[in-house]
Amino acid sequence: MSKLPKIHARRDLDPSKMFSIEQLDLEFSNGERRRYQRLKSRGLGAVIVVPVRDDGQVLLIREYAAGLHRYELGLVKGRLEAGEDMLEAAQRELQEEAGFAARELTELTTLSLAPGYMTHVTHVVLARDLYPSRLTGDEPEELEVLPWPLAQLHELVQRPDCTEGRSIAALYIARDHLLNNS
Amino acid sequence: MSKLPKIHARRDLDPSKMFSIEQLDLEFSNGERRRYQRLKSRGLGAVIVVPVRDDGQVLLIREYAAGLHRYELGLVKGRLEAGEDMLEAAQRELQEEAGFAARELTELTTLSLAPGYMTHVTHVVLARDLYPSRLTGDEPEELEVLPWPLAQLHELVQRPDCTEGRSIAALYIARDHLLNNS
Repeated sequence: MSKLPKIHARRDLDPSKMFSIEQLDLEFSNGERRRYQRLKSRGLGAVIVVPVRDDGQVLLIREYAAGLHRYELGLVKGRLEAGEDMLEAAQRELQEEAGFAARELTELTTLSLAPGYMTHVTHVVLARDLYPSRLTGDEPEELEVLPWPLAQLHELVQRPDCTEGRSIAALYIARDHLLNNS
Repeated sequence: MSKLPKIHARRDLDPSKMFSIEQLDLEFSNGERRRYQRLKSRGLGAVIVVPVRDDGQVLLIREYAAGLHRYELGLVKGRLEAGEDMLEAAQRELQEEAGFAARELTELTTLSLAPGYMTHVTHVVLARDLYPSRLTGDEPEELEVLPWPLAQLHELVQRPDCTEGRSIAALYIARDHLLNNS
């Protein structure tokens, strides 16, 4: 189990450095008028990768999550970089975060984060036929990789350190896809 | 299918009206130092409700999602109000959004949204033994309620209007819970 990073300093930042907010004046089909706000994503979108070995184990990573200040177990994920398509981003993140590449990459679906007030979307990519291959990313430390049986997700989601909605959704969606296409 | 709201006006807002950002200066256990930013939730947390009828159908709602400017199929959810506990919030939101109340409410787990840079957490509540009961909330229009067989989630997640990671995760977690506790 990794030791938590030490917090040396914390301070409040100007939110406009990181986010844009858009206000919409809306009229619903029944004539009701409302004002909504939404957080606009500035990036090119994100990918989340479900790397499944031939023995049916999925590779999870344990990564420091600053939002909760704890280590979380979840899937490889990251933002698309300029010029990359979704499968290229998945292949790069898989090598940077888990030390594997995949000979077979398949887009399964697209997930939203909080569609009521965020524009963010994440592409779910299934990665199969894995082989060791490491790329150096911007991670501050090497991430622990934990294989987990895809047949035992009900035990995984009971762990207090596996909580991210998108990771859990992507795992179940990949399992259903493999069950229905094998 | 509901007709989309008309957008009469849109403008950029000062993000500090809605969000706080905190910057952390971190030192990892290997001595690496990094600066991380995280979006701080101002609320009391949120609930997401999985209302399951005795016939095994889950009640979904179709709600306008401003982030994606489309109607999305998902679960009842909302923020805790001052003085409410999680089960009280679940009972209230279920009545406001779906027109039902539950004689049995069970907390299943807690989900995070984007734990790398958000502090938000959402409590997942299973609602059973349902009966009709409506409360008026702040919704601009009555929400369409769609029963869906819990046994057919693999078809639900293939729909282009059912994309929210937390809703999908909560549905699978509730299904696993019911399978293992019946």
